[in-house]
Order: sequence, then structure tokens, then C-alpha cells
Amino acid sequence: MPNRLSAPDLPVLQKKYESVRQRSVSLAASLSEADATVQSMEDASPAKWHLAHTSWFFETFILAANVKNYQRFDPAYDYLFNSYYEAVGARHPRSFRGLLTRPPQDEILAYRQYVDDAMSTFFGSVRRLEICRLVELGLHHEEQHQELLLTDILHLFAQNPIRPAYRNPVPLEVNCGRVEEITWHAFDGGVRAVGHGEGSFCFDCETPRHDVLLSPFEVADRAVTNGEWLAFLEDGGYANASLWLADGWDILRQESWVAPLYWEYTDGVWQNMTLRGLQPIDLAAPVSQVSFFEAAAYASWVEARLPTEYEWEIAAGSLEAGGNFAESELLRPRPQNGSGLRGFYGDVWEWTQSPFTPYPGYKVSAGAVGEYNGKFMNGQMVLKGGSCVTPAGHIRSTYRNFFHPQKRWQFSGLRLARDC
Amino acid sequence: MPNRLSAPDLPVLQKKYESVRQRSVSLAASLSEADATVQSMEDASPAKWHLAHTSWFFETFILAANVKNYQRFDPAYDYLFNSYYEAVGARHPRSFRGLLTRPPQDEILAYRQYVDDAMSTFFGSVRRLEICRLVELGLHHEEQHQELLLTDILHLFAQNPIRPAYRNPVPLEVNCGRVEEITWHAFDGGVRAVGHGEGSFCFDCETPRHDVLLSPFEVADRAVTNGEWLAFLEDGGYANASLWLADGWDILRQESWVAPLYWEYTDGVWQNMTLRGLQPIDLAAPVSQVSFFEAAAYASWVEARLPTEYEWEIAAGSLEAGGNFAESELLRPRPQNGSGLRGFYGDVWEWTQSPFTPYPGYKVSAGAVGEYNGKFMNGQMVLKGGSCVTPAGHIRSTYRNFFHPQKRWQFSGLRLARDC
Amino acid sequence: MPNRLSAPDLPVLQKKYESVRQRSVSLAASLSEADATVQSMEDASPAKWHLAHTSWFFETFILAANVKNYQRFDPAYDYLFNSYYEAVGARHPRSFRGLLTRPPQDEILAYRQYVDDAMSTFFGSVRRLEICRLVELGLHHEEQHQELLLTDILHLFAQNPIRPAYRNPVPLEVNCGRVEEITWHAFDGGVRAVGHGEGSFCFDCETPRHDVLLSPFEVADRAVTNGEWLAFLEDGGYANASLWLADGWDILRQESWVAPLYWEYTDGVWQNMTLRGLQPIDLAAPVSQVSFFEAAAYASWVEARLPTEYEWEIAAGSLEAGGNFAESELLRPRPQNGSGLRGFYGDVWEWTQSPFTPYPGYKVSAGAVGEYNGKFMNGQMVLKGGSCVTPAGHIRSTYRNFFHPQKRWQFSGLRLARDC
Amino acid sequence: MPNRLSAPDLPVLQKKYESVRQRSVSLAASLSEADATVQSMEDASPAKWHLAHTSWFFETFILAANVKNYQRFDPAYDYLFNSYYEAVGARHPRSFRGLLTRPPQDEILAYRQYVDDAMSTFFGSVRRLEICRLVELGLHHEEQHQELLLTDILHLFAQNPIRPAYRNPVPLEVNCGRVEEITWHAFDGGVRAVGHGEGSFCFDCETPRHDVLLSPFEVADRAVTNGEWLAFLEDGGYANASLWLADGWDILRQESWVAPLYWEYTDGVWQNMTLRGLQPIDLAAPVSQVSFFEAAAYASWVEARLPTEYEWEIAAGSLEAGGNFAESELLRPRPQNGSGLRGFYGDVWEWTQSPFTPYPGYKVSAGAVGEYNGKFMNGQMVLKGGSCVTPAGHIRSTYRNFFHPQKRWQFSGLRLARDC
Repeated sequence: MPNRLSAPDLPVLQKKYESVRQRSVSLAASLSEADATVQSMEDASPAKWHLAHTSWFFETFILAANVKNYQRFDPAYDYLFNSYYEAVGARHPRSFRGLLTRPPQDEILAYRQYVDDAMSTFFGSVRRLEICRLVELGLHHEEQHQELLLTDILHLFAQNPIRPAYRNPVPLEVNCGRVEEITWHAFDGGVRAVGHGEGSFCFDCETPRHDVLLSPFEVADRAVTNGEWLAFLEDGGYANASLWLADGWDILRQESWVAPLYWEYTDGVWQNMTLRGLQPIDLAAPVSQVSFFEAAAYASWVEARLPTEYEWEIAAGSLEAGGNFAESELLRPRPQNGSGLRGFYGDVWEWTQSPFTPYPGYKVSAGAVGEYNGKFMNGQMVLKGGSCVTPAGHIRSTYRNFFHPQKRWQFSGLRLARDC
Repeated sequence: MPNRLSAPDLPVLQKKYESVRQRSVSLAASLSEADATVQSMEDASPAKWHLAHTSWFFETFILAANVKNYQRFDPAYDYLFNSYYEAVGARHPRSFRGLLTRPPQDEILAYRQYVDDAMSTFFGSVRRLEICRLVELGLHHEEQHQELLLTDILHLFAQNPIRPAYRNPVPLEVNCGRVEEITWHAFDGGVRAVGHGEGSFCFDCETPRHDVLLSPFEVADRAVTNGEWLAFLEDGGYANASLWLADGWDILRQESWVAPLYWEYTDGVWQNMTLRGLQPIDLAAPVSQVSFFEAAAYASWVEARLPTEYEWEIAAGSLEAGGNFAESELLRPRPQNGSGLRGFYGDVWEWTQSPFTPYPGYKVSAGAVGEYNGKFMNGQMVLKGGSCVTPAGHIRSTYRNFFHPQKRWQFSGLRLARDC
Repeated sequence: MPNRLSAPDLPVLQKKYESVRQRSVSLAASLSEADATVQSMEDASPAKWHLAHTSWFFETFILAANVKNYQRFDPAYDYLFNSYYEAVGARHPRSFRGLLTRPPQDEILAYRQYVDDAMSTFFGSVRRLEICRLVELGLHHEEQHQELLLTDILHLFAQNPIRPAYRNPVPLEVNCGRVEEITWHAFDGGVRAVGHGEGSFCFDCETPRHDVLLSPFEVADRAVTNGEWLAFLEDGGYANASLWLADGWDILRQESWVAPLYWEYTDGVWQNMTLRGLQPIDLAAPVSQVSFFEAAAYASWVEARLPTEYEWEIAAGSLEAGGNFAESELLRPRPQNGSGLRGFYGDVWEWTQSPFTPYPGYKVSAGAVGEYNGKFMNGQMVLKGGSCVTPAGHIRSTYRNFFHPQKRWQFSGLRLARDC
Repeated sequence: MPNRLSAPDLPVLQKKYESVRQRSVSLAASLSEADATVQSMEDASPAKWHLAHTSWFFETFILAANVKNYQRFDPAYDYLFNSYYEAVGARHPRSFRGLLTRPPQDEILAYRQYVDDAMSTFFGSVRRLEICRLVELGLHHEEQHQELLLTDILHLFAQNPIRPAYRNPVPLEVNCGRVEEITWHAFDGGVRAVGHGEGSFCFDCETPRHDVLLSPFEVADRAVTNGEWLAFLEDGGYANASLWLADGWDILRQESWVAPLYWEYTDGVWQNMTLRGLQPIDLAAPVSQVSFFEAAAYASWVEARLPTEYEWEIAAGSLEAGGNFAESELLRPRPQNGSGLRGFYGDVWEWTQSPFTPYPGYKVSAGAVGEYNGKFMNGQMVLKGGSCVTPAGHIRSTYRNFFHPQKRWQFSGLRLARDC
């Protein structure tokens, strides 16, 4: 964990604590007890589990570790709501999370309140900077689970033949495919600094800030749209092995991929399942719920490539980290109209061609918190920029998200790059 | 379907309809929305699904088939709540039943009310005997699902590390292992009539009544107890291949069987998970939740065997079909104290050594209802007598239940037999 | 094991020993070292393994058990070539049999010679009848493996895109579909004796001889032909769920069954893979390589059923056990021309509707040989009559073969029956 | 494919052709027909298949593409012996390669001769440089398969309980653990050129040569030894989750890893299976048959790391590419005695921490040959330096081998690096 920031203002931190914690509860408020309990696949977790696990994080790493004679809300929770921290002890197997019909949602909410009360008291006695850092980490961790809560609920609802909507299903205004053609923006090569420096929060994997040597490159001004994807699909993109990485082609055939994860072709019309129910596809909006393999095949089809994570960071570097985040309440990607480099933040996570590996000089932190990112630095690809279900303020240009290249249930899309 | 009974009294049938239908709702009343939704394994179904499917049966086979312009409650239900009737159309895959967080429980209860209202009206216009037969079938079908609802909830709760109780978890009075030694009752061989004749309801697989030729045999006066099973276990019964059928030994090793399904050994004590939570094992009560393979291995260990279904039927034939059924509210097997042939009905289903095959002259009924039993007449074993979660009145000596030999989640035990 | 036969003539037994043992070697003579080594699926075994295992049987149960200071050919063989005898010790896992490229075929043949030499000496000193019985069992055991060697080689060659032939691939004379329509032969019901009595060899599962009560029944005069099967297929037999047992329908969809195992449709013609290579289908010959599930679906399609094993035994009882066995060298079923009850023996094993269960009073023998049949008495169906790859003389009316209902790689077909 | 080399001398190329082709045949000469046919796992291929596939490469890409009216040896081979070239047409599934008992080895050797004869004629008429390039590629391709042939035979023999030896099993002289402690060699950071330039053969993935920016680093003078690995193992390295990447820990538990792939602990002694049979472990020799996950865990245990592929290339850059290659006939790693940077080439492939990704500016070649490397640039890790079964002359400092991080059947070990 970064230990070289200036001290945050404690009241500010406490206020942020309250607002982040409250937001999690709000996100789950419209879910039924059943919605909040069921696990639709091993990659996804129940909403109730997200609510409990984020509280477990504060209880375990802040309260139990620092408050004398702290009494856990329920000792069983230590087993039930650990996600993957080997150092902390045994845990409930991931694939069985959806069988926990008890404790009920009410009790989980009481657990949250219990932890929040204890944290409130605890804030009065915080003396050490490193604890503020850990609280901050816990809040960013909770924001990550807020996004997962939404992608996991969408996955659950997409398995249901009646296609329930998470929010009011009235369709968004649809742009009918009008978005400008892609234009390319060139960047010089040379030695450039990337990664996160001192002065504000970041995850350990964003450090250390270091120099990289880039060749000149070009980046598209906006993300690839549904309309462009449809052209790929109609040109046989999902049937042409020469466009695909070998592992991608294998999984395509095994799982019979013919379109992005939530696209459905019914009565001659493509629709896609969204958090607002089944909706017509917005041809002008960025394509979403595609895997790295699909993104790479598309790039190959247009004789371009995906950017490296460094190219993306350099290209996005001067832009403000604003955009269509969860707070817009659209809960789906929006057409990136306009001109100039745009849409780097929000809408969809953008796959890069960079495997998620440690930066030069990266060291895993000691203790359980050291399991946060380092142990996942194999077999996953870096994504950048956040999505329409990411909390605003959670993202920065150095932020590195990562998923396995075959995963499709996130709001993941792509932006093209090419050599100069 | 039986078509040779005398006409039931229509008001009696309607009254039975109301009581059976009401009982299903009562059984689920103490479940949370989440308890009623989750599916803990492919063999089990959610309580909500049981409630809906039994209503679908009446809607599909009675109302939609006989009521002019009958308006289905929701056309999607026809797909969602069909269990296995191929002739009726496509259906939601069994293993995804637990993903249906919607429709919510309230809506399922409204569905039940809608069907009950329509049935109430329909009863006024019933003219044909065969429809009464079909209603009667629907009620017996629903009683079967009432039992499954309880066994499936127990399975779900048994997967939960906090071991929730379906009913008040106060332990039952435990008998401390005092039950008399087994005594054997001899029966002559010869030609005997088995199966169900005319005059009252039965399932098609119980017919036709026919003669079989039996050799002289003996049957134990009561079921095998937990105490006796413990002796088997402690004698290495689960580690001695020579006692087991080959397929049983394979699955024992694959799934690491060391005791009946819900037994747990903690801190030197054997307990078992019940509908009343985790409880000490009652050594005097019949062993339960064992597979056919385990039952056969036990019988081999004591140099006896399981009875055939015919032997069981002849031995039980003169006894009244009473015992510890669901209505006792014990919801677990009770020691079979006393003397004489006893415990044939209630407590635990008793595995026989008879594969579930058609009786001579058996014909599958025409139409979808013909899928009721006939298509399962392969690879399963007959069980007799009902259990502590079977509705009283549901069982008769000719009743043939059937499960695959490796299944363990039912209240299934055994009674010994041997050649004279 | 039967222990109530009259003493066989020892020289006769020794002569039979020599001829059976020699025949195994002959069957494998045309195979390459590779053909004899590879295992094409878990159910099948390599030819080399069959040759070694049958020798292991004599070495283990006769020589090592009875010859003082008997020196095993190679102690490792005890582990490598045990099939499933738990009582004898650990064994090489079945699914890895095909990885044993060493010991080479030459060494296996030397092993056979070594055992044969030891047996030759041993025959001079045999005093006890029970040992003759065990030798006889070993020979019948080896004949069973001779049949499996052929069915397993056919399976291996059928996986090879170049479709090698085991024997000269010149096609047999094809009958062009001319065989008489089925006629039915009626049998009275009543108490009939079935199973094997005293006086000659049989497997333990054929005993004890006992009475059964039969209803009147009819049996078809011949087996179902390829031509009749083609009509079933063309009528959508493989697409009509109502004809199938539930487990059969599941596996049909899972494995995409559309025809018998070795049928291929190429350029508008149905051919099938045989021990003589890929050949046009002989419409008049009995259908082969069908599972029990397919056989039962066919019977359902023609509104008939499969016979029980008892009906088959009674119907075949008065006929001589002759027919198209392996010695005819046809190595495929032959049209059952002519009239009258025929074709019960040879051509194809005929599926019955009887699960393989113990006869009343059956007891498993003590010791390792007791594992011969008893532990398989679950989940399998009885087949009768032998096939075109069964050694002549191996079969009798009481012979009970058994396979799981989904297995298709044997020469298995069917004959119809129906109630009177 | 590289198109910027100077013209090779045609007679030199032809001579190399003859020697490489001959060497493949020699490697397989001591194998039985069965050894050469069986496939021990999906990753491995039969020796016979390696011999045929390498010939298929010349037949398909050189002869059929360039020789007018070229008559293929057997059209079926085009289907049977294509490895993964989607553009060339359908192919025999990889996992079924071991079922091809036919064509026999003799016929495969005749196929080789046929192709060699045609190539011999063809050499007389070669005019175009690009064809020479393709022949050269075919030879390097064949050398890769020569290595695989050996690693695959070792895997096959390691599955056999009698542990056959590929070569004379007399143990090598064992060094008894005397090798000097590791010393570290420091390298400056800065911009350095890596990758292959013009002037000699290389694979496409080694290009283009390009600049990278390195931080200062240190590299160990030699590879990690078996003795050092034993200390890791005895310190609980395989039981300490904190040392492992998450995916590595998962597979360790799933496959019960407790030591390198071919280590066996019997009667208190560690041995390992080698091409010369089961041998005592040489504590001074480099550890081999470890996965990337194991290598990374070891590095973590000693608080070091694996080098990047660039660090390795820079560190090895000035050394001659000599060492213990296949031609030494040792066929196992040899202790890297001495001092100074050593052992970069031969003995064991050294895992790097670099995922196998395209170099900046890399373009996939057009046509089927373009499938050579590019489509595998996901999910695999780069290994450097060659092993004791790699042909001498096949390796250079820019050579990039790649395997999935969980693979263990190659001669793969590691060398440590660390930040300055």
C-alpha cells in the first residue's frame, strides 16, 4: 500500500466513509431478498455477499486489528465473508456463496450498521497515518464491489427468461447510429513516465511510477460502437479463425459465441439485456460486454490493434477523468458524440493489449493486505478508464483494472490504436 | 392412469383439493424469499418452484385443456414451470431453476390463488369422471412435491455453515439407544397377488395387479437403526470394498462417503443435520439419508439382504398404513419401539432390491400425463412405505417410490430380509 | 462358483485349455504392436492387455495359489494386469491401460508361454475337483475376453479416419434387404423353471435354477434388421422424445445420437464400420451396435416391447445353441433368412428388458473369485444369445451377459416381444 | 517471416535439410511401434505424429505450393497431420492423435522418404529467396519437434509403472551437490536494443529488433539447482500460499503438486524420471520440469524474482550460445560448475516473468505460415536459452520459446534476478 502520501484530512475521510458506505446500501435497495442472495455463476457474487464482504474488510483489517477487545458481530462471518485472503484463515468456497439464504438481508444490514457504528467511534481515536491509508483502501475496495454488484445483478437478470430490469425499463433515447467516423490522434514516441506517483490514493499495482520507452503511435478518438461491431459480426467476424488468437478461437467454439454476451437476435432485431431490461441496441453507443479475445479479433479485422496500457495512459493523460459513470444513472454506455479525443473515462472499460504484470520495482505489501493485487499478476489483461457502472471519482489515468481475457460480463469494450 | 374406479364424490374431491393446496402454502410459510428461491443442487428444486409447478400442473392439464377461453395467469409460466413434460413443449432447464429470483414469491402465491379460483369455478361444471381422476392425480402429484419441498429445504440448509433450522430447533426427546434387537418374521412362498387393483386412486406404475411367485422369506420386524449403522461404520463398513456393489464403491471413493449424508463428527460426537437444525444422533431411531448402495452394503455386512418390493408388499400387506408421517410434525424418524412387525409406514422410505421396472401388462398412458412414471423405468430402485415428511394418507402398500441408487438426500433407510 | 458338477475329464480340460489359449494368440496375430497397445476409450482395453490379463487370471488364481514356490513371471504384472479384483490388491487404473507401450507384445507372448508351461506341468498334479472348476472358469473368462478383444479393436479402428480393416475388407455378399416379415410365436404363461442346473459349467449368476411365473407372451421369429431400423430412423425415431426412456433421451442429446454407433452417412449412402472395414449396410441383416435405450425406443415405436430374460430363455429353450459365431469368420451379423423361430444364438446379443439382478437364493462366492459377477448386479441390463464375435460353444440359453443401458460398442441388437 | 536476410548458399541449405531430416529418424529409431504411436496427454504428441507432421509441413508449404502437378503421398495425410493451421483446412483433433495405430511407422518413414526425394529434386529448381526462407523455417520447425519428441516420450515413459528408459539407463556421474553458491552480476539500466535484426534466420516473433528501457538489475550467475529446490520443498514451499500466484495455488491444490513433475519419493530417497530411466536426483544440477508458477514461488521464497526476457537477453548477449544441448547425449541437465555468468544456454529452458506478447511493430505474416507464432501471443510466458534436449545450433539470445504457466513437462527451470 502506498505509504508516501500526505495526510488526508480525517473529517474528510470520515465523511467519505459515510457516503461510500451509504451508497452500497442504496444500490441494493431495490433488490428483493432473493435477488440479493442468488449467485448466477462462479465469477459473480450475490449482492448480499458484496454488502457483507465489504464490511468484513473493515471489521477484519481495521477494527479487529486495532480496537482493543473489539467484539465481532458474529464470529461465523469471518469464515463466510472472506473473499480470498489466505493469510486470514479458512473461507467459504466461492462457488457456494449463493447457498447462503441465511443470514438474511436484514441481518447483513444490521452487520453493516454495527461496523459503521464501531468505525464511527474508531475515527475519534485514529492517530496513525497508515490506518487512514487502510480506511481509504477499504473505501476504494468497496467502490470496486459496488461496480461488481451491478455487473453481477445484470448477469443474474440476464439468465432469467423474463429478463427483469434493475431500474425503470423505459428505453433511453437512442441515437440511431449517428456518430462521427473514427479519427486518429498521433503521439510521439520517446521516454515517458507512467504509473502513479505520490500525493493521493492509488492501488499498489499502479506503482512505482517509472519511465517507459514508447514508439510513435496513434489512438482512435472514441471507442468502437455497436454499429461498427454489427458490421464485424455481419462480415463473419465470429466465423473467421484467422482474426482470432488461438485460445480465443477455442473458447468461441466451445461456448458458441456469435455476438457480445448480452446481445439477442429475436424476430429480426438485435436487442441487448441491460440494467434497464431488454432494449434495442444503440448503434452509436460503445460496444460492451465483449471479451479481450473479441476485442483483439475486431482490431485485427480493421487492421489495427489494441493500445498498450502505457499508450492509453499517455493518450488519456491530459484529459479530465470525467464521463458517463454510475452517478449518471444511465447505467449503460452512451454515444460518444462530439469530436476530439473523448470517452476515455466512463461508458466502457477499454481492453488494452497489456498483460497485468508488476511494474519494475513493484513489491507486494506484507501481511494479508498484500494479497490485494500482486497475486493476480498472471493471465489477466489490463483495462483502463472505468465504465458506466463505476463510481465517479474512483478512476484516474493510472488505474489498472484486470480480467481474464475470456471474461465478458463486465462493461468492457475497446478503443483502437495503431503504429505510426 | 387408472380408469376403472368408482366415481369419487365431487364435493369430497373439492374439499381435498382445498386442503392439499393450502398445505403447500403452509409448508413454505416460514421460508424467506431467499430460502424459497435458491436451488442447492440439480436434484433439488426451490420451494417457490414447487409451489408454481404444482399449480402449472392444474393449469395445464385441467384448466387450459378443459375451460373454454381459459386465460393463463402468465404465458411465460408455461415455459418456466414445466418439469419434464416433453409433449407440452420447451421448458426451463432444471439446473437453472434457482436463478429465477423473479417472479417473486408474492406473485407465485397470486398464481396459486388464480388457479385455485379458476378450479373452484371449474368444479361446478365437471361432468366427466376422467377429469376427476386427473384432479386426483394432480393432488397426489402435489403431495409428492410437498415431500420434496421439505427434503430440498433440508438439503439447502445443510449446505449452509450456520446450519439453519426449518422448524424450532429444540431437540426431540432422544431414546438413548434402547430399542429391542431385531426379530425375524417368516412368510411362506407361493403365488401371491401384488400391485393395485380397482376401487381407489393409485399411480399407473402400481398397476396392473398381477401374480408373482415368491420363495419363502423372512423380514425384520423393524428398520435398521442409527445405532446399528454406527456399529457398521465403526467396523470399517465404508472401507471394505467386498461389501459393496462396484458402482457403489466407485461413488463412495469419488465423493468420499464415510457416513450417512447428514452425519457430522465434531469434537468426538456424531450429530446430524435435521429439519430442526443440527442435533445429536438418536441411536434408537431408524437410519436415514442413506443411498441404496449403502443400504445394500449394510445388508451384506450382516449377511442379510434387502427385501424385494413384492416381499415388502406382502409383509406389510395386513398392516394399517399409519405411522410417523409429516403430520406428526416431528419431521425426523422416531424410534420404532414395541414388538411385532412395525414401522413399515412413515419414518423412512425403505430401499428394496427391486429395480423400478414395468409390471407385466403395464401400458404407458397416452398424452403428456403418460410421461408421469413410465419414462423413468430404468436405472432406479423401488422404495416403499413413505417417510416422516410424507403426507399422511398419501401412502399404501402398493405405492412404488423410486430413486437412483446413489441418491442420499431423501429420508431413505432400510429393513432387512433373508431367505428361509 | 458352481460346485455341483460331475468331474470333467482332465485330459479333455487340458486340451480345451490349449485350444482356448492358442485362439487368443491367433486373434491378435494380425495386429501391429501399436494396434495391440492403444486404448480407444475407458470401456475398451488394448489387445495386449487382454492377452496379459487372461494369463494373470491363471497365474494368480491357479498357479500362485496352488503351486508351491511358484515364481511369478514378473511381479509388476500383478499390479499391471489385475482388472478389478479388489481383494487381490492394488491395480493399474483402467483408464491408463493404453499407456503401457512396455512391456512389448513379445514379452506378453513370452508371459503367456510361461504360464502355459507352468499350467502344463500343473495339470499333471491336479487332484481336486474345485481346481478343475477354476480352470474351466478361467477358460470361459478368456473366451469372454476374446470377444472383447474383437469389439475393442473394432472401436479403435472406427476412431481412425482411414478406417482400417481387421480382416480382408472385401465386402460380404449383401442380401439387398430380402428377409421375410416378422411373424410372432406365442408361448403359454404359467410357472416355468429358468436358470442353470447341475451337470455342466455355468457362471454363478446363472444359478440357482428356480421357478418363475410368466404371463402368456409372444416373441418375434427373428431379430430386428438394419432395414427396419432405417425405417425407424427415417420416421424420426431419434427425434421423438415420447419413444424414449428419460435417461436415454438425455444421453441421445448429449452425445448427438442419430443412428447406430458405427453407421455413417456419406454422399447419400449409409455405410457402417465393421471388422472388415467400412461397408454398405446390409438391410436384411440384424441391426447391431445399438444401446438398450435405442432398442427400447424402437420397440416402443412399433408398439411392442423387449422380452424379459425369462421369456427369451423359455422361447430359445428348445433350440440348439448354434448360429453365426466367431468361428464363421464372417465377423458381422448375417441375414436371418428362413422361417420359424431362429437367430437366437449368434449374430447379435439381444437386449432384454430385465435388469441384471441376483436370482432368488443367489450367493456371492467367497474370496476374490466372488467378485466375478455379483458386484455388477446394479444398473446393467441382461443380454442373451451371443454374437458374431462370440466363440462358438461359449453360449447356452441360461447365459446372462450384461452391459449398462447406454453402451453401444458391442454387437448388440434386439428381438421384439409383446403381451398376448 | 523474415525477408531481409542475405541469400543462403543453396547447397548448404540442402545439406542442412538432409542432416536435420535424418536426425529426426534417428531420434525415433529406438522406439517400438507402440512407443511411437501412443499419446500420453493432450499436450504431447506421438513420435510417429511428429515424424509425419514435420514432413507434412514441407509437403504442404513447399512441394504442393510450388511443384507443378505435385502428387501428394496420401491425400488423407493432409487431414491427419496438420497441427493447427486453420487456413489449410480441417484437421484431425489433437486429443485423438494417439488413436492412429495406422498408418504404421513403416509407412510414415516411407512418407518421409517420399517427401525427401521430392525435396531433393526440388532443390535443383529453387530460384526464389523466399522459398529458401520457407525451407529454413521448415527445418527450424522440425528441430522444435525433435525436442518435443523427446519431452513427449519422457512423459509417456513416466506414466508407465515400469519406468522404461529411452536410452541406456546407467546413471550419469552425480556431482553430489557440490556447486558454488550463487553470485550476482549487475547490469546497468538504460535504453538497450533487443530482438533479432537482419542477416540470419529467426522466427517472426523475435522481430522487429527494437529499443527497450531497462532499470539496473542483477542476474544470478547460474540456474537454480535441485539441491536448492529441495531446501524450498523442505521449508514448506509447496504448502505456503503466500509465495504463490493465485492461479498457481489453485492448480497446485487441484493437481496435488508437492515437487517437480518427475520427482518421486520412495523409501526415503528422492529420485526423478529421466530419459535414462529413474535416477537419483543430482543435487548440483539445475532443477527441471517445473512450471512458471513453481519458478515464481521459488523466486518469491528467496526474495528475488525471475528476469524479464529483455534482462535475460541483455545478460546472455555477449556469451556464446553453447552448452549442454541434445548432441551431448546426456539428455539431462548437468551441474553448472565453474564461475562467472554461465549456463544460459542448454540444460534447462529458463522461465522469465515476461508474457509472450508481440514486439512493437510486429506484424503477423500473410497466409497459413502466419499462424506460426502470432496466434499464440496470449496467456503464455517466454522461456529462454534452450535445454539439454534442444538441438545445438537451434538457439540464439533472441530466441523466444513460450508455454502456458502451468505446464511442467518441458525441461524448464529458472535463473534468479533482482532489482539493484
